Amino acid sequence: MSDSYRVAILGATGAVGTELLELLEARNFPVADLKLLASERSAGRTMSFKGEDLPVEAVGDRSFDNVDLVLASAGGSTSKAWAHKVVDAGAVVIDNSSAFRMNPEVPLVVPEVNPEAAATHRGIIANPNCTTILMAVAVWPLHQVQPVQRIVVATYQSASGAGARAMEEVKTHSREILEGESPKPGIFPYTLAFNLFPHNSPMTEVGYCEEELKMLNETRKIFGASELRVSATCVRVPVLRAHSEAINLEFEQPFPPAKAKEILATAPGVKLVEDWQANYFPMPIEASGRDEVLVGRIRQDISHPCGLELWLSGDQIRKGAALNAIQIAELLVERNWLQPATELSYK
Amino acid sequence: MSDSYRVAILGATGAVGTELLELLEARNFPVADLKLLASERSAGRTMSFKGEDLPVEAVGDRSFDNVDLVLASAGGSTSKAWAHKVVDAGAVVIDNSSAFRMNPEVPLVVPEVNPEAAATHRGIIANPNCTTILMAVAVWPLHQVQPVQRIVVATYQSASGAGARAMEEVKTHSREILEGESPKPGIFPYTLAFNLFPHNSPMTEVGYCEEELKMLNETRKIFGASELRVSATCVRVPVLRAHSEAINLEFEQPFPPAKAKEILATAPGVKLVEDWQANYFPMPIEASGRDEVLVGRIRQDISHPCGLELWLSGDQIRKGAALNAIQIAELLVERNWLQPATELSYK
Repeated sequence: MSDSYRVAILGATGAVGTELLELLEARNFPVADLKLLASERSAGRTMSFKGEDLPVEAVGDRSFDNVDLVLASAGGSTSKAWAHKVVDAGAVVIDNSSAFRMNPEVPLVVPEVNPEAAATHRGIIANPNCTTILMAVAVWPLHQVQPVQRIVVATYQSASGAGARAMEEVKTHSREILEGESPKPGIFPYTLAFNLFPHNSPMTEVGYCEEELKMLNETRKIFGASELRVSATCVRVPVLRAHSEAINLEFEQPFPPAKAKEILATAPGVKLVEDWQANYFPMPIEASGRDEVLVGRIRQDISHPCGLELWLSGDQIRKGAALNAIQIAELLVERNWLQPATELSYK
Repeated sequence: MSDSYRVAILGATGAVGTELLELLEARNFPVADLKLLASERSAGRTMSFKGEDLPVEAVGDRSFDNVDLVLASAGGSTSKAWAHKVVDAGAVVIDNSSAFRMNPEVPLVVPEVNPEAAATHRGIIANPNCTTILMAVAVWPLHQVQPVQRIVVATYQSASGAGARAMEEVKTHSREILEGESPKPGIFPYTLAFNLFPHNSPMTEVGYCEEELKMLNETRKIFGASELRVSATCVRVPVLRAHSEAINLEFEQPFPPAKAKEILATAPGVKLVEDWQANYFPMPIEASGRDEVLVGRIRQDISHPCGLELWLSGDQIRKGAALNAIQIAELLVERNWLQPATELSYK
């Protein structure tokens, strides 16, 4: 019998937490024991795992005793508050928040790109930002053939990137607008239904919001490419799930689109979606619930001899968050970078 | 008493036609007589102008007798079929379709940019594509100070760019999805509600769709800048009205954002919308029904020393189509580039 692990999900009731739970089951991760942790507010609920109803517990000082692996997705402040306690308790945390991503002692991992980085962990491994993961999966295979110099990217980010309640707000507001009412903003600063706006993460001094700078800084760290230049415009759109990105790449030499397509057709985590005759390319409704990042519309940039344009849609809750975290966990298990539980066995 | 003109709207019942009618009244264009023309299917309806119900007539061979000015917005094939008959009848046509835009004998006019071009008309003046007009209004004031070399633009185009029925389809499909049903595509090839997809205009050999090439070719013609390079990714989004654009500009020398803001704050047809503290920038719901193109998020491109990023939202039915056409008509009147009617006077 193979090793199995005592796992905790911190933030189990959120959009990503729910997905983590589903993926642990669907991918048959070797779970010896599973603990569902959330805030006081969500405690007392139950969630189903392999046919059993598990209680959601409020996170507390003893939550991480007898745990090997914590999958955290409860926001940056929660991660900052608990991650070191997880490590002190002897477990490894794969953190979906931005709290530790740029910490030089914390590996930032996309398994298709830099799996080796995970080997250096000291108890915390960071999961990158959703838009960064999707872009990294699509661009890395090309970057390996010829290093990309500059990226200009515009995003089309769905409501659920701001959580399950944001997705509900878009539905409610859409209903209200269709009935002739004027919705009141709640989660988002402005109504997103039938509207869109630049991403509302905190603005920085350079005129880019934090979400946009993540696409620069995190991509540099994941690629190990400190010279890479990235200018992002991040925009929230009234799509329920899955993000899309219009990506303009500049190389030092021309990158033939046919070669890029050939590479991406077999790249891990990528599905090439292009039917030029039918004008059929990646769409968020088709990316929703899928593991792969859908990539297409690969074409020579007509404005730059060394430019390449591409378009992608990817499920930001799945590959952009939960799936990537589970893949990191699988990597730790496969490479023996995580201590297994020896005594307990789930089912 | 000032001169007045016998006007016809061809395609009066469409989204742009309806707007043309409203603007003729709202801007008090000197109308001596107004004829509403449409296809056989729409004939017989009435539409209101200055308190009077006017009949919609089916367009026919005698439709342009005793007409000075035709505002055409009934699609390329209708314009191709009728424009020369309008000219033969002695009238001037301002055409909103793509039929004549790239014809070297036809001026392509954005009044804020190249009003003088209208003087050279031989009976036909073309109104540019909506995305092009919005971008031209925002970029031209900067281009005059320092010529822009290259533009990388990603668009967020609303449903109504495909007509009034497309807008209704998005509403209907949204309702169906909210009720758990699966909508059937009709106007658009795929469901746009809670989804988005690359613009479905015909694909060309270079991998750009026609809509995208318009942003290159029309901008070159309007700016008189044959060397300008433009790479566009055009995307349809589930917004009812007003298009948005993420625009990356490259100049030969750095273009200080403060200078760009100063220029755009007083540029004709532009409203600078930026509250960095509040993360408040142009949004399509706020651009809808407005004359100005809302421009904001002007920032130094962190990926290029001579780059400048900006973001805009503009009403593509109004400034992107109907208003621009009316402004061309007003220009013809002001500069005396149109023969007035002498006998009739509307009211």
